This record gives sequence, structure tokens and C-alpha cells, in this order.
Amino acid sequence: MTSPFNPAIRATFAPPVMEARRWLETLDIPADKPLINVSQAAPVDPPPLPLRQEIARIAIEEPAAHIYGPVLGLPELRDEIAREWSRAYNGEIRPEQVAITSGCNQAFTAAIATLAGAGDAVILPTPWYFNHKMALDMAGIECRPLPVASDMLPDPKQAEALLDSRVKAIVLVTPNNPTGAEYPAETVQAFFDLARRHGIALIVDETYRDFDSRDRAPHHLFEQPDWDRTLIQLYSFSKAYRLTGHRVGALLTSVARMRQVEKYLDTVTICANQIGQRAALFGMRNLGDWRREQRREILDRRAAVERELARAKGWRLLGAGAYFAYLEHPFDMASDELARRILGDTGILMLPGTMFAPTGAEGGSGSAETQMRVAFANVDAQGIGEMFDRLAAFSV
Amino acid sequence: MTSPFNPAIRATFAPPVMEARRWLETLDIPADKPLINVSQAAPVDPPPLPLRQEIARIAIEEPAAHIYGPVLGLPELRDEIAREWSRAYNGEIRPEQVAITSGCNQAFTAAIATLAGAGDAVILPTPWYFNHKMALDMAGIECRPLPVASDMLPDPKQAEALLDSRVKAIVLVTPNNPTGAEYPAETVQAFFDLARRHGIALIVDETYRDFDSRDRAPHHLFEQPDWDRTLIQLYSFSKAYRLTGHRVGALLTSVARMRQVEKYLDTVTICANQIGQRAALFGMRNLGDWRREQRREILDRRAAVERELARAKGWRLLGAGAYFAYLEHPFDMASDELARRILGDTGILMLPGTMFAPTGAEGGSGSAETQMRVAFANVDAQGIGEMFDRLAAFSV
Repeated sequence: MTSPFNPAIRATFAPPVMEARRWLETLDIPADKPLINVSQAAPVDPPPLPLRQEIARIAIEEPAAHIYGPVLGLPELRDEIAREWSRAYNGEIRPEQVAITSGCNQAFTAAIATLAGAGDAVILPTPWYFNHKMALDMAGIECRPLPVASDMLPDPKQAEALLDSRVKAIVLVTPNNPTGAEYPAETVQAFFDLARRHGIALIVDETYRDFDSRDRAPHHLFEQPDWDRTLIQLYSFSKAYRLTGHRVGALLTSVARMRQVEKYLDTVTICANQIGQRAALFGMRNLGDWRREQRREILDRRAAVERELARAKGWRLLGAGAYFAYLEHPFDMASDELARRILGDTGILMLPGTMFAPTGAEGGSGSAETQMRVAFANVDAQGIGEMFDRLAAFSV
Repeated sequence: MTSPFNPAIRATFAPPVMEARRWLETLDIPADKPLINVSQAAPVDPPPLPLRQEIARIAIEEPAAHIYGPVLGLPELRDEIAREWSRAYNGEIRPEQVAITSGCNQAFTAAIATLAGAGDAVILPTPWYFNHKMALDMAGIECRPLPVASDMLPDPKQAEALLDSRVKAIVLVTPNNPTGAEYPAETVQAFFDLARRHGIALIVDETYRDFDSRDRAPHHLFEQPDWDRTLIQLYSFSKAYRLTGHRVGALLTSVARMRQVEKYLDTVTICANQIGQRAALFGMRNLGDWRREQRREILDRRAAVERELARAKGWRLLGAGAYFAYLEHPFDMASDELARRILGDTGILMLPGTMFAPTGAEGGSGSAETQMRVAFANVDAQGIGEMFDRLAAFSV
């Protein structure tokens, strides 16, 4: 007899990014149209040389970089985050309210593990970040979808209508993956107030924070002295310093919850890898200017997308921000089929809205089948022009 | 109101290793007795220079080491494992049956996620490896303890009596943490046959395999053509190549289960960090002799423990192997209290049996309160002599 399977993980969908990779392997792309890959929500270039040199130095000179460190992370990195965050968010954040995780996905699963178990429920705005949905599904936690409005923003009032005793948390991602929407401070605040009023948690994933077009703090949650009773903030070092392959993220919450986070992290990975943590620390201390330059470049690319899109007749911009433009396509074809068709005809790999929503979902003024995510961050202005040239010439 | 807590994680005990660290911070150690730390089941020295140099080279020269890789791991590393394992275990292991994880703890949580959910049950021999127990507790999975006999081995017949429809897997750790016991091939085989007969999984954690005193394959499970229908094998690169801080482990199972493992790994960490995977690959390809030399050294240390123990009157060796000696102490004091007393009086930090067993557990010819784990791998022969000098002079 074959050993059994947990029905919850079997019912969890497969990683959509792997599916997109399989399209690349199986579909023929026109020879005269080299691949334009706008499927990836992550940098494809390595970090700048000084950071790579620092990793090389650490590997040789710091024995501690090769052995276990504290479960909750490198103390210097937790300190640095507490300091930078306190300044950036105009709040008081202490190092013991910061944990370092093996990437931001693990920050999410750690947060959820402290909040909810099988049979509980969590609210995710849709379109969602697919790994959030997968995490809930495999843990047997009900995902309550909260479709965004036509401005791509979730509505706290609608969220409130979804609450009952089983709901333990609401999750926001801002700037949003996949829509790019930068949630206004008031929206985030309204969700915080709602969560606090009902004694549930608000998880705010700010993976793409460093590319927000707004120059000030994107919300005021950390200004409240008891922020940590409600808020769990998640962060990633993958985008800001191009450390995707190093798996370093962060989670901010109360000291009481941190004791539970510590159990989870110890059990799943013991600690985040030591070299990645030191690389993140070097980035925070030395690459601020470089990071801001990256942000300007990505904001320029976003502007190029917004400008050039007009040439692709019938396509409409639903949201834009950070790495993403969220588009409505004009064709009478479901977005997942269309994505493969576009790849085969034009050499552009974008992801269909169906990868970010429940089957048959409505939201953002249309169904997921009419929507496409374009992650433009890795394509320069010329490439963006070329992409819209090809889209303008494309029809089904 | 404060946001809620998942009762399952609240009921999970705190990481025992953190508790031991707190003892170190709060207890005064005699000035003339420098710390002898036999609490750590991991190397405390960095990997050899050629490996550190390789990491430095990779950091500078390999852009791919900084970005995401495949969820299931670096293809070359999966290939290398499949090849080395096929040879070492005299079986047929294919690369697609191998996944790379962020350490061996994650290999365990991934395996469990594919097998069981809240309300299911898993059998753990006691004394157990505490992170296994914690992983089950926080997932709401019942842990059925299987106390080992006086030879420190679990009995398949006793395990069979614990089976019902809720039990999805049996977990073995060999060489065992904490007892050091090297499970005979027949024992492992009997558990495999039992698991297969009942259509459940056998998880075999071989983290300490490279320090097994036996020169041949420790079991014959991989010789069976359909091993992967029952067996999930776990491995760690932390001990063999001193890569603890890099978080690299492996999981071997069927391709069908691997599809579920892939969902879990993608959701929790996306991929194991890329530098650690490359370091592991370099280790496998270049450090075989070094690894075998380490093994000889650790076997010498084990022999020293077995030899010197006689001087500590009343102490008895229950098990020894890999990094560990499992001891019975002669005092009328519970092992957790005794461990702190020994630390304060003698400067020796060992872990009490109570950290590896349910409260009040019996097993291994006595209760956990009479037992101590001595992880001697980081202490040289002279230090082992010194440790038993101190223990010989100690009494409560």
C-alpha cells in the first residue's frame, strides 16, 4: 500500500510560477521575438558588487556566519530594522518586536501559525498573492475572499460583513501584488481600526515598500503606541537589495506573539541563514542610495508602462505600482488561455488574473479571466516600448 | 482588544535549546571551571577553508547564487545526492525523488504537511527529537509516544499496537538524537514492513548518518524498488560539512509526494538559499576525505566517553553514537533541576532527558528524569577527560 496524503495539501493548487515555467519549456516562441519575461515579481540581476564582496569577506572571515544563530535573528539586524523603521514610520519599534525569517513567505506562515489553525478563517482581498492562499489551504484554514472594488482597493465595510468568530486575521499587501495598488494610509488605517475593534490581527505585507511612489510613510500604524496588539507587519529583503536567493525577510509584532513566532521558526528552519542576514545588514547600512536609485528607475518604468499602454488598443490599466501593472485585456478569451497565446505569438510571458483569484472570481470591475499581471520591473524602457509594440500588433 | 492566538501553538513547548541558553545567561559558572558545553547537537567550528573560499568565489562570480532557483532545489545537487545515495545504499534513487530543503527541520515539516493535518496522528519513539514533537503539536497533529526499550530501540510490535486509522506515519531518527542509538538494519526494516503493511509512511531522519560507526549502509530500504511508496528519508548538510548556519537539508520520497512537497516548500520559503546549496554541492564533491576524517575523530571521542564514564560513579551509559551519549544519573533529583545544578557547580552544560520526553515519561529503562544527553562532538579527548573529572567530583 502507498502511504497516505493529507487531503488539505492535495487540494492546494500547484505553485503558479512553476506552471508559467512549464509554459516556457513547452511553448515555441517566435524566433524574431526574444522572450520578454514580465512574469517574475523579483529581481533577476544579482546585488551590486560591494554587497557580493561583503558576502565573500564574511564567508572567509566570520566563523559565526557558518553556524547557528539565534532563532529570532541576528541581533544587529533586528536592531537596525527597529531603528530604521522607527524613523521611517515615525513610531517606536523595539528590536525584540522584530524577527528575521527565511524570506517573507515564511514571515507569513509564521504569522498565521501563531493566529489560526484548521477550522479558523482568514480574510484575503482578491486578487491575492497566491502563496498566501496556498498557505491557508494547506493548513486547513478557510480563506474568505474579499474582492477589491474598481479602484483595486478592498473595502473595510465589506470586510466587516465577512467577520465572524472564526476569522482571526485580515491580510493586506501594499503596494499590492498582483495589482500594484498602493493602499492609501486611510484605507490601511480603517482596516487596522476594524481589526482592533474585533480583536483580530491585521497582517500587512510590505514586501514592495521600497518601491512605493509616495515619499512619506505609507501608513501611520506604527505611530500608535499599542500597534503591536493588532498589527503584524511583514517585510522582504529580496527586492530592496536583490537578495531573493538568500531568503531573508522580517516580521514585526508584539513580544507576546514573538514567543510563539520563535517556536514556529525554531521548528521549521531553526534560524534564517546567517550569510543572508549579514548581507541584509550590509545592505541596510550601506546601500540606501543605491536602493533609492533602483526605486527611481522602477518608477520610471512604471511611467513608461502607463504611457505606452495606450498603443495597445483595448487594453486598460487597472492598477500600477511597485513591480506591477494590472491590466484588463480586450479579448473574448479567458486570461489563462490568453497568456499562453500571447507567449506563443509575441514572446511576452505575463501571468493571467486567474492565478490570483478563486475560480470564477469577480473583482476590480471584472473577472480574473479578463485580467493580466505585468511585472515590468526587470524590463527597461526600451523593452517596455518593444513589449507594447508587440501587444499593439497582437490579436486573437 | 489584542489579536488572538492559535491555541495549538500556545500549547507547544518553547524551544529547549533557547531554555538552555537562558541558563547560561543567568547561572554563574565557577571561575576555575570554564564552560564545557555538551548541549549542542551541531558543530561549533566553521567549515574547512576550501569550502569557505568556494562560497566567496560563488558570491562574486555566480549571479545565479543570488536569485531564486527551482523550488525543489539546485538540479546539480539533486543529481549528486541521487548518485551518491544510490551507491551508498545500493539502491536506485532518481534526482526527481530528491528535494532540497532549508535544513532538515524543514524536511520534516514538509514531509508531515504532505501526510497529516489537524486531528491525524504520528508515532514518535521517545525520547524524541524535540522539534519533531513541536512540529506535530503546532499543527494540531496528535503525537503518539512510543517509549524505547532498555536497549534504547523502539519495538515495531509495540508500534503496531498504537496504530489506528488516524496514524499516518512513524518517525525514526538513526543514529538517534538524543540517545545516540544506531538502529540495526533489521529494526529499521521491521518498521518499514509495518508501515507498508498498514499503508502509512515511515519517515527516517538520518541527520547524523555520516557519523554512524558502521561501515556499511545502515539499512536496506533503498534496495526495494518501491521504497518510495513508504519511505520518506530526511538528511542534513549541517553536520557532515559544518553548514549549520546555511540551512540546507534534503528529503527523499516518491515523485507523487514530491508534487505536494513542492507546494509546501514554495509556500514557506520558495527555495533553499542558493549559496548554501552550492556549498553543499562543493562539500559532496570535494570534502569526502575530510568528512571521513571528522567521522573518525568523533568515533574516537565516543570511545573516550565510553572509557572515561566509569570514573563518574553511579553514572550509566544508556546509548552512544554520532554526537551523543545518553546517560543515566545516580542522583535523587529530577534531570532538569540536576542539569542546572551541574552547570552551576561544574561548568558542564548538558541537556536533561525531560527535554526529550513527555512529562512523566518512562522508557529506556527509566524515566526521563533520570536521564541526560551529552552531545560530546565538540569536545576533544582532553576536554572529555576534564568533563568526567568534574563529574566524578560532583554530587548533589
